[in-house]
Amino acid sequence: MSERTVRVTVWGENVHEREEPAVRAIYPDGMHAAIAAGLTELLGDEVQVRTATLEQHEHGLPQDVLDNTDVLTWWGHTAHDRVSDEVVARVHQAVLGGMGLLVLHSAHYSKIFKSLLGTPCDLRWRNDGGRELVWTVDPAHPITAGVPNPIVIDAQEMYGEPFAIPRPDELIFISSFAGGEVFRGGCTWVRGAGRIFYFSPGDQEYPVYHHPDVKRVLANGVQWALPRLRQAPAGSPESPVGWWE
Amino acid sequence: MSERTVRVTVWGENVHEREEPAVRAIYPDGMHAAIAAGLTELLGDEVQVRTATLEQHEHGLPQDVLDNTDVLTWWGHTAHDRVSDEVVARVHQAVLGGMGLLVLHSAHYSKIFKSLLGTPCDLRWRNDGGRELVWTVDPAHPITAGVPNPIVIDAQEMYGEPFAIPRPDELIFISSFAGGEVFRGGCTWVRGAGRIFYFSPGDQEYPVYHHPDVKRVLANGVQWALPRLRQAPAGSPESPVGWWE
Amino acid sequence: MSERTVRVTVWGENVHEREEPAVRAIYPDGMHAAIAAGLTELLGDEVQVRTATLEQHEHGLPQDVLDNTDVLTWWGHTAHDRVSDEVVARVHQAVLGGMGLLVLHSAHYSKIFKSLLGTPCDLRWRNDGGRELVWTVDPAHPITAGVPNPIVIDAQEMYGEPFAIPRPDELIFISSFAGGEVFRGGCTWVRGAGRIFYFSPGDQEYPVYHHPDVKRVLANGVQWALPRLRQAPAGSPESPVGWWE
Amino acid sequence: MSERTVRVTVWGENVHEREEPAVRAIYPDGMHAAIAAGLTELLGDEVQVRTATLEQHEHGLPQDVLDNTDVLTWWGHTAHDRVSDEVVARVHQAVLGGMGLLVLHSAHYSKIFKSLLGTPCDLRWRNDGGRELVWTVDPAHPITAGVPNPIVIDAQEMYGEPFAIPRPDELIFISSFAGGEVFRGGCTWVRGAGRIFYFSPGDQEYPVYHHPDVKRVLANGVQWALPRLRQAPAGSPESPVGWWE
Repeated sequence: MSERTVRVTVWGENVHEREEPAVRAIYPDGMHAAIAAGLTELLGDEVQVRTATLEQHEHGLPQDVLDNTDVLTWWGHTAHDRVSDEVVARVHQAVLGGMGLLVLHSAHYSKIFKSLLGTPCDLRWRNDGGRELVWTVDPAHPITAGVPNPIVIDAQEMYGEPFAIPRPDELIFISSFAGGEVFRGGCTWVRGAGRIFYFSPGDQEYPVYHHPDVKRVLANGVQWALPRLRQAPAGSPESPVGWWE
Repeated sequence: MSERTVRVTVWGENVHEREEPAVRAIYPDGMHAAIAAGLTELLGDEVQVRTATLEQHEHGLPQDVLDNTDVLTWWGHTAHDRVSDEVVARVHQAVLGGMGLLVLHSAHYSKIFKSLLGTPCDLRWRNDGGRELVWTVDPAHPITAGVPNPIVIDAQEMYGEPFAIPRPDELIFISSFAGGEVFRGGCTWVRGAGRIFYFSPGDQEYPVYHHPDVKRVLANGVQWALPRLRQAPAGSPESPVGWWE
Repeated sequence: MSERTVRVTVWGENVHEREEPAVRAIYPDGMHAAIAAGLTELLGDEVQVRTATLEQHEHGLPQDVLDNTDVLTWWGHTAHDRVSDEVVARVHQAVLGGMGLLVLHSAHYSKIFKSLLGTPCDLRWRNDGGRELVWTVDPAHPITAGVPNPIVIDAQEMYGEPFAIPRPDELIFISSFAGGEVFRGGCTWVRGAGRIFYFSPGDQEYPVYHHPDVKRVLANGVQWALPRLRQAPAGSPESPVGWWE
Repeated sequence: MSERTVRVTVWGENVHEREEPAVRAIYPDGMHAAIAAGLTELLGDEVQVRTATLEQHEHGLPQDVLDNTDVLTWWGHTAHDRVSDEVVARVHQAVLGGMGLLVLHSAHYSKIFKSLLGTPCDLRWRNDGGRELVWTVDPAHPITAGVPNPIVIDAQEMYGEPFAIPRPDELIFISSFAGGEVFRGGCTWVRGAGRIFYFSPGDQEYPVYHHPDVKRVLANGVQWALPRLRQAPAGSPESPVGWWE
């Protein structure tokens, strides 16, 4: 694979952290900062991590940032509708062109995830801080390397089936919750040349992104989603007989 | 399965047929009429077929038509951008709610197909009237029942790989062309409760929808895409512990 | 689909029922009899159900029985190694030729399931009679028709991940257990022309096959697994140019 | 990924080469030697390649060789039935435990491939030396890196659909032939912890394994199939509540 540094952009909505003291207590510099720190901690010189947030110009995602991003991570929750359609279309094109995308927790309802998958991404939920167990069902998948089975998250929001997604290309993790619900919380899809990994743990009210196993999953996810190629849109070229010769 | 009559709506762009004498010579009443006639010929009392076209009010697809359609077939080519976003969104919701969808030939570039799949659906093409062979690679699939392997279509437009689609849930047919190209021309996906079948043969300049094997594939496709359930959007309900009791 | 009667053969190991009074108390005529009764109760004239058991000549599965079976259901546990390799090979060929197969509970370790899948089918287990919840993750799949989400089974053996199976073609149900484990308990695969459905609930110590929702799943499974075609082995025919003309 | 040297064992039947002067003229040291040379040429110090052949003791595949093999490649044709069942079972266990496996051309009928997939792997064929075009349908897959689309192989045996395999986890290449046939000639599956790649070009009568693009595909395949973990069989452990704590 690539021997150069992986350029990661961690995107955060950064609303709860600014408006709610309880969230700020867990993530004083924002959830994006914690996610970025975890990647740097585990991947070191292999990655170069920057952050971008909603309130920045173009949400911190102008074209040149995407052009220089190998893997984008996306966390949003309360302000999905404040993300501009233009930026969503730009991110969509970047993914098709090969940029990896990690979609985190409540970003199941983000515009970018829904437009890439074509489905509403509905689910059941309950925020009672019960225990979540994250079970590996594909032990040979590289995203599970170094991760215990199960991952134990003492307190989390419940996300339950049915989860209105297309059939995943790969199902890696299934979560169970204290109330008995299950959730396909670790799934991958390929769209164009881009690899997409959805990972469900991570409500803002719990210190999930400080959890060592969650940090490991995200680091593995970044390595897995690394572009195999970057390509411009192909369009539909007219092709005379033997065009390849 | 359902024992009642299957309600099919055949949607046609109906532009080439009106503007080009060569096309009208093949399809004097429009391509949609030929497709509808083929379904009625093969399925008889099992189906009740109506047609709808671009130039009609709301393209012939107001909400009550979709509410009373089990399976919609879609052929478009030259006027994809004249289909209103509002109708596309309505059809998208209907598919998620369980309506079956057959996407035909150049409708690979229709708004509805691209929005359901999330990819550009690019491909290579050449309109030289060469022979297309349609090979069955999943002989036990019900869509292949009664279809020879290969189907021989004497003259057709070439569609070639790479075809920019998500990995199909099922790959049923692969076409080859006189120039040596191949194409994944028979694919299925599920989105929400809706079943989608893409079938590639069918350029307007050739009498493909009069071909008995193509008629058979479409009839099988309608039966396969029949809704198993119709459901309203679930949304994401908050769910207290033991909500199902 | 077929309008004729579906011929089902319910195969049972029939050892626990004869040797253990507690099991016989639940299934006085054997588990196979209960499974057969459930199918007849729900499908009525649509099916013609017979049973076959280990202790019969050729385990009750001579060639002519398989030739006249549309769907075979298989429950075994303590005597997998007493099933003759010759009968397993015969069933394997029948599945490839189009016969449907429902593999039930502890038959995850049956010779026929392992030979069709190529994997060891290992899992974790605990027989403490805890509650099993069976969650639908594919609500539009016909096997889920008329089934509540979740199915509640008050007492069952726990089966847990990792489950050493190939990636399912379709994942329909995921179970959770009182101890927090999860299990991909409703999966399908196609092998040759045959459809295979694995459904995990059904330990012999609990009245699972008397549960109305479980009976419904098995009835739906039989209808789903109905052969689309029956075919002899193709072999690898030498094929001159244009052999299909 | 692993930073250590990848240990590859290239297995060859080595019968045609010894018995047929025309084959020996193309592959004077055996097909296995040519395949091994191609891997070494392209991967250099990244790999350590050895060969093993049918006529050796235990076919050159005693347990300690498999224990020290990361990826095994397998070519056989005329002597599948002379491969001992004991060695096949040993290779099967090694794959489940994580060893990668590349299955080449006529090894579609090898015991090891059929036992891993559970299907007969039948196909159509014609040895007339026509042109094969190998089309990439998954351009972002790492096995396609550096490979032209299509690969042009001037003379090869035809392999045609239907190919009696389970649905591939990934479909990477589709071949077309001068007679118009198509073939899913580049497919992957995972079984246990092991990755399997089938690649169809490579009849013994043509210099296919000297073709630079074919060498590239095999080198990419070796890198892709590299074990993510090696694991002993898990068995089915009884697991008390909270066993993971």
